[in-house]
This record gives sequence, C-alpha cells and structure tokens, in this order.
Amino acid sequence: MMHGRGAYTTVDGDKCLMAPGDLVLTPSMTWHDHGNEGTEPVIWLDGLDSPIVRYLEALTGEPHAMDRQPTGYLAGLSERRFGVAGLRPTWVPPGTGPARLIHYRWEPTHAALLRLAELEPSPFDDVMMEYIDPATGRSVLPTMGCYIQMIRPGVRTRAHRQTSSAVYAVLQGSGASVIDGVRYEWQRGDFFVVPPRAPHAHANDGADPAILFSLQDVPLLTALGLYHEEG
Amino acid sequence: MMHGRGAYTTVDGDKCLMAPGDLVLTPSMTWHDHGNEGTEPVIWLDGLDSPIVRYLEALTGEPHAMDRQPTGYLAGLSERRFGVAGLRPTWVPPGTGPARLIHYRWEPTHAALLRLAELEPSPFDDVMMEYIDPATGRSVLPTMGCYIQMIRPGVRTRAHRQTSSAVYAVLQGSGASVIDGVRYEWQRGDFFVVPPRAPHAHANDGADPAILFSLQDVPLLTALGLYHEEG
Amino acid sequence: MMHGRGAYTTVDGDKCLMAPGDLVLTPSMTWHDHGNEGTEPVIWLDGLDSPIVRYLEALTGEPHAMDRQPTGYLAGLSERRFGVAGLRPTWVPPGTGPARLIHYRWEPTHAALLRLAELEPSPFDDVMMEYIDPATGRSVLPTMGCYIQMIRPGVRTRAHRQTSSAVYAVLQGSGASVIDGVRYEWQRGDFFVVPPRAPHAHANDGADPAILFSLQDVPLLTALGLYHEEG
Amino acid sequence: MMHGRGAYTTVDGDKCLMAPGDLVLTPSMTWHDHGNEGTEPVIWLDGLDSPIVRYLEALTGEPHAMDRQPTGYLAGLSERRFGVAGLRPTWVPPGTGPARLIHYRWEPTHAALLRLAELEPSPFDDVMMEYIDPATGRSVLPTMGCYIQMIRPGVRTRAHRQTSSAVYAVLQGSGASVIDGVRYEWQRGDFFVVPPRAPHAHANDGADPAILFSLQDVPLLTALGLYHEEG
Repeated sequence: MMHGRGAYTTVDGDKCLMAPGDLVLTPSMTWHDHGNEGTEPVIWLDGLDSPIVRYLEALTGEPHAMDRQPTGYLAGLSERRFGVAGLRPTWVPPGTGPARLIHYRWEPTHAALLRLAELEPSPFDDVMMEYIDPATGRSVLPTMGCYIQMIRPGVRTRAHRQTSSAVYAVLQGSGASVIDGVRYEWQRGDFFVVPPRAPHAHANDGADPAILFSLQDVPLLTALGLYHEEG
Repeated sequence: MMHGRGAYTTVDGDKCLMAPGDLVLTPSMTWHDHGNEGTEPVIWLDGLDSPIVRYLEALTGEPHAMDRQPTGYLAGLSERRFGVAGLRPTWVPPGTGPARLIHYRWEPTHAALLRLAELEPSPFDDVMMEYIDPATGRSVLPTMGCYIQMIRPGVRTRAHRQTSSAVYAVLQGSGASVIDGVRYEWQRGDFFVVPPRAPHAHANDGADPAILFSLQDVPLLTALGLYHEEG
Repeated sequence: MMHGRGAYTTVDGDKCLMAPGDLVLTPSMTWHDHGNEGTEPVIWLDGLDSPIVRYLEALTGEPHAMDRQPTGYLAGLSERRFGVAGLRPTWVPPGTGPARLIHYRWEPTHAALLRLAELEPSPFDDVMMEYIDPATGRSVLPTMGCYIQMIRPGVRTRAHRQTSSAVYAVLQGSGASVIDGVRYEWQRGDFFVVPPRAPHAHANDGADPAILFSLQDVPLLTALGLYHEEG
Repeated sequence: MMHGRGAYTTVDGDKCLMAPGDLVLTPSMTWHDHGNEGTEPVIWLDGLDSPIVRYLEALTGEPHAMDRQPTGYLAGLSERRFGVAGLRPTWVPPGTGPARLIHYRWEPTHAALLRLAELEPSPFDDVMMEYIDPATGRSVLPTMGCYIQMIRPGVRTRAHRQTSSAVYAVLQGSGASVIDGVRYEWQRGDFFVVPPRAPHAHANDGADPAILFSLQDVPLLTALGLYHEEG
C-alpha cells in the first residue's frame, strides 16, 4: 500500500484493511476482492507473477458467485495464527498449508529495519529483509520474493549483480542507483527496475533514510537452479 | 523464566535478560552462561534433553576460557535478526544456521494466545501454540519441542494420547488433568508429566485462564517415524 | 538415443557411449561435447529447457578452451557411483551434488518396464516410470522430467489432463492418442505433443507393446505450485 | 543373510527369498514373518533398533491374525517398483511412502563395490557404500544406516572417529582394525563393534578383498544434530 487509507483486500474471507506500507498477499487460487471504504483515493502497487504463469500457459481464473465474498465475524485471521515470530498454532501442520500469514503490517516491519540497522548491514544492500512465510521460512510466493530495504543516510553500497531481476518502489526518502553503468536518481513515489545480470549499487546522500520495497524473481530462479550472484 | 527479575542467559555473546514467561534457548554447542544481577532470587525451569543425548553417548561439554563470556556491544542480537514474524535479514541464508532466534519474550507470546483464543481452539488442547524457529518453521530443538497453552475458564478438553511424553509447568491459574484415568489438580508453580501413550484431558473450572508451558519429545519421535496420535 | 551406434556425449569428463534407448543428461553448467565414432549416422532426441531459461533471461554459455574436453582414464564414472539402485558412495554427501548419475541405460530401463507391467498399471498411463536422480529421488532436471512408458497390447487408458505439457517420442510399436478430442495415430519414430490442460488418452490396438519416451514440464510447474491434474 | 539358502522374510505380503549377502528390511509397523524352506540351517544377522525405541518407550508390537501372512501372487514387489537405479513408477508419489524397496540383493551390491573400487576410495573406509531408499536417497531406516564396505588387499586406512557407533559383520576375507588404540584381528564370520568417538582404522594385509557389512546409528545422530566426524 503506497498512499491513502480505507482500502481493503479480502483473501479467502479474511478482510485486511491496508495502511500505507502494509504488504498483503493473494496466493494462487485464493478468492480475493478489493475495495475502498475511505473518502480519498488510494494507491497501491500490484505485483503480479502473471507473465511467467501466462508463459507456462497456466493462467486460469474464476469469478466468485457473489460480487463481494462474505467475510468472517473476525478480521485478521492470518495474523491471529501467525502474527508473532516463533509461534504457530499446534493444529496447523508444520510446513505449508492453506492457513498462512496474509497481512504483513508496516509498523513492525519498519521497527524491524531500524533494529536490524544497529547490527550488521549488507555491503551490497545495506539493511535489507525478505518477507517470508513464518510457518516455513520460505519466500512468500514460489515465483516472486518481496523485500524491504533501508539505505541509511551517507551509505554507498558496493555493486553486485544477480541472474534475477527486480522492480523497486521508493517508499520513503530519496537516493540514486547506478545500474549497468548509468546513474538513476529516485525519490518517494518513483519506481525503477534492475534487469538480470546488471551490476547495481545504491547510494543515499540525503539526510533521511531511504526505504525501498522490491519484488524479485529470486525464488523462481533458485527453484530452477538458475540463481547466481556475483559481488 | 518462572519467577523474579534480573537474571540473564548469554548465548554465543547475546545477553538475554529474562523476564517471567520468557523462553531462552541454548542450542547444542553454543557457549552459554547464566547470572542474576537482580536483588532477589529467581527461579527458572531448565529443560534439558541430556537423557537422550547421554543414552546415545553423545554428551560432551567444554568450559569457556573465561568465567563469563564477553558480550557484544548490543543485546538482543537474535531478536534484531528474527524478532518480527515474516521477516528475515537477506544475508542470513534461508534454512537453519548458527544465527537464529534465541529469546522468545512473554508479552507477545501471551498476546498471541489471547488473539488466537478468539479463533479456533483445539478440542484436545484448547488454545495451544508451538514455539518454532521463525527462519525454518521447525521445532526449536531437534529433540524437544516447546509449547505454550491456555485452557480457558469453563473448558474441558477431549482426551487424546500420543507416543510422545510431556513435562508441564503451570504458569498461571489452576485446573485439573485426567491422565491415564487418574485426576490431578494443579495450580500456579506446579509441574506434572504425561507419560507416553497415556490418554489425557485438561479442565479449567476456575474463573481465570490457566496457562501451561510444556516440553515434549514430539520432534524426536517424529524424526524417527515413531510419533503417533489417537483422538 | 533413437537410432544408430557409435555416438558419445562427454559430460564433465565422463564419456558416455550412447546405445539406442539410452538417456544421457547434460545438467546446467556442465561441460559437454558430442561426437560420432561409428560408421553410420545416428539420431538422437535433444530435449532442451532453453525456452523457459531464455524467457527468464538466464541463458548463458561458455566455449571450452579445447575442441574436445579431456576424458578421464575411466568411462562410466556416474554409473560407478550411482548405477545400482539403493547404494551410494559414503563420501558423496546425501542430497544433490555435482557428482550424479548422468547415463541411464536402455537395457535395465526396458527390463524394469517389463517387470513393473506384471504389477499395477496406471489407469491413465499404463506402465509408466519417471527417470529420477537416485541420490535424491527427485526429477532429473529442475525444469523438465523424463519419462518412459509402455502401452501394452490391447490397453486403452482413461483420459486425464494436467496443467503440464509433454513432448512424446515413439521408441517402439504403434498406437493412437486422443488429445483434446482429436485422434492421432503414431508409430516408431513419430513425435507428438500434449498441450497444457488437454485431456488425453492412449491406446495400443496392435500385437506388440508400444514404448513412449516423454519430456514433461511437471517439475517446473510443481516447484511453482502450478501443477494440477484431473482424472 | 550370512549363510545358507532357502530362508525367506515376508514383509507386507512381499516374500523375499534371502541369498547370502542379501539385505532385507522390515520397516516400522510392517507385518513380517520368517521361515526356512531349505534343507539346511541358515544364519542371518538381525539388526534391531529396539534399544533406542524401547528407551523412548515407543516399542509396540501386534501379532498377525494368521500364523503366516498371505503373500501375493507375485514375489519381488518392491524390486519391481524400485529395483532399477534412477526409475520410479509415476503413480508412487515422490518422497517416502509405504511402497518402498525392501530387498537389496547381493550380486548387484558386490558388482557395485568392484566397479566403485576403480574410482575413488575413501581414505578412512576404502570402498564403502551406504544402502539408501532409492525413492528418496535417504538412509534405509530413520534410526540406523546399513553399509557395505570393501577393504582391498594391501590397504591400510587412515584413522577417523565419529560420534556414532557401529556393529560390523565380516562377510568375506580377513583383516584387522585398530580401535581406540587396540588391534583386533577379524575374519569371515566375526563381528566387532566401534563405540562412539573411538578412533578406528582398518587394514587388509591378505591377498583377497575383505568385505564388511555394518549397522551404524548415523541417521539418528544426524537427525538430532549430534553427528560429528573427525579425520
């Protein structure tokens, strides 16, 4: 969710009210519908893996019988089951299953970035975390990974390149990236992409932290034995 | 941690101040030492898998060169890396590794039990969660699992039996369990055990929730193909 | 290998002489070269996963410094390590690794089909086996699976459909398949394809067994959570 | 099977005639019965994991309703399904299941040792192979691994030690092992053990290959994170 309040996504009956910075998943073959119950327009980033699914001729869809699927008497089902690190309901079998974390909220995510920043940054990405399924430790989707990243003021990362590609959205602050030898400046609201095998490095010469959300096809390439990285 | 404040366990340089209800792990082959910097005695429950390790003649130990291992400039390293559900530092490889969550705090655990209680209880255990390694979704130790469980007021669970055994500690409230046909009453501070294959059911006839912590050898029996359960 | 003798494929120094019916793998990033030391032309079926790899912009290649890579003093390295069902050298770590079975020979494969035929056929595929990596039990490649299949005389299979697609090569005999409602007759040397989600059934009205080799993208779709089957 | 012909073990209806050198598994909770239809006494080595199962209070048993369980119209079911390296019936789901390889025959095992001997011996064990489940690549039982090993004439291995223990049976030839500093000579028909953490090395000063079968608790210790090895 990029901007505005009042919008929701319902996933298999679990209605998720989306605040700015929240990540909501709509995994394969889940019923989902969206709406805005607020008074202002909202903007969110939709990250679809439909190109690869369409390429594999596996794209299917089905309309729900109702205009808006019914929701349960409770909201936040997925957070009630998996919202605390290191705990899972004992009657949910270990490993993957239909009951899973759907709504990843901004506040704890932001706080986690700030705490991790005191520890050990990555030379290539500064302070970067991957969203994972807490029941398995695996990427949120088998095709795409979701990442949140803070480039602290004054940081200039070293360049690396991967066989994977990335779509970046700038959530906060501003900075610049050198991608395949070309410098691109970016600020809040911008998007930029890193193509496969393009060396890239990020810099934040401003006074405030820059925060980047990205979608990367790392899980897909890893599953196929095609993921490689060079520092 | 059962009672008192001021005590700590340091695990591989990560000093964990233990408040009542906290769970702290000392995984195999980690340097660990304990101390109490408070003014009152403290009591904690030490759950050791040394019987099976000793039976396998695999028990070894090594004294640290110093009386008290040095700690880093920061506390809470493991929480900074893995303390938020659904996020992991990207430079920690997926799957198991030496950097892992060590300190599981009481407050979010208790809040998770209360939230889950609104959802769907287990007929055999009422509201029960397993502590897991958030980087893998697996049990906290390969031999023993750790569990937290709330029996709500008025609840009487159905009986079941497992090939595994359990050691229970009563953290809050009071109640009774029928184990192999015999009724045992328990209250805060008590311990009780459930032997392998003993049918057992729990009841809370009081006005307040009862909270049970337990250690069970479910992961060990599962790994050996020996875990079975009967409702 | 479809026809002729005398040809070889060398994979990372392991020279495999290919007889008709043999399957030889050239896994990702292995040095490989081919040649024909016989006196007659040979024909083999090359099954490449390059479309998906190219689509992911992950296709790379490197010429070997020599025209023909050097081979070891011994041939059949991969068969010496993994050629007998249920045995692996103890110094090869369990799970996947660079040392793996490369050469799957026709004679034991054919014998396995005949033995399995006495047991329990599949209603959809009659007697069908998947080539697997014996060190892991997994498909031979992460993108494509290889299959060998015997349709016995008189057998008409039931129709099923999958989200995966298949390329079939007829190694022996003749028969017919009904694919998406259209009947295609085939005989030794023919190829035919089954597109995603097309219902298909096979029949052998002849007097001899028909043998089909196929390449299917089942592993790829399974890894991405996109494999589904309907009987 | 150490000596004699005519004996069988039936496992879930699959009657396995046991020739010298054969390995037959009776996995947990399978119906099994033994008999000798030959004219001479036979001797086999029974390798039980009952000590650890009994220690975990998980030992149970059930008598079959009949004196001798009925066998199918076919023998060798498990070999028909999994008897060829690198092939599995497509209707057996990948991974572990009730249908699995039960009978590991001596002739291909012996041939595999001889072929592997031309390749790359282990400095600690000379030519050694682990029996594995060909559907998964994992050890034949979750508690115990089975191993076959050839010490070639003139070979003296380097010493190593492991946290695991081993029971050795000498199938062919003679030799000597130095275990924890003491030299033990052995010949065909002998047994010897290697306790946990005991350094051990083997030597064959004779003219013929020595062949050792062993049972080791490596899988159990590995599952519990307790397996370590030192060269």
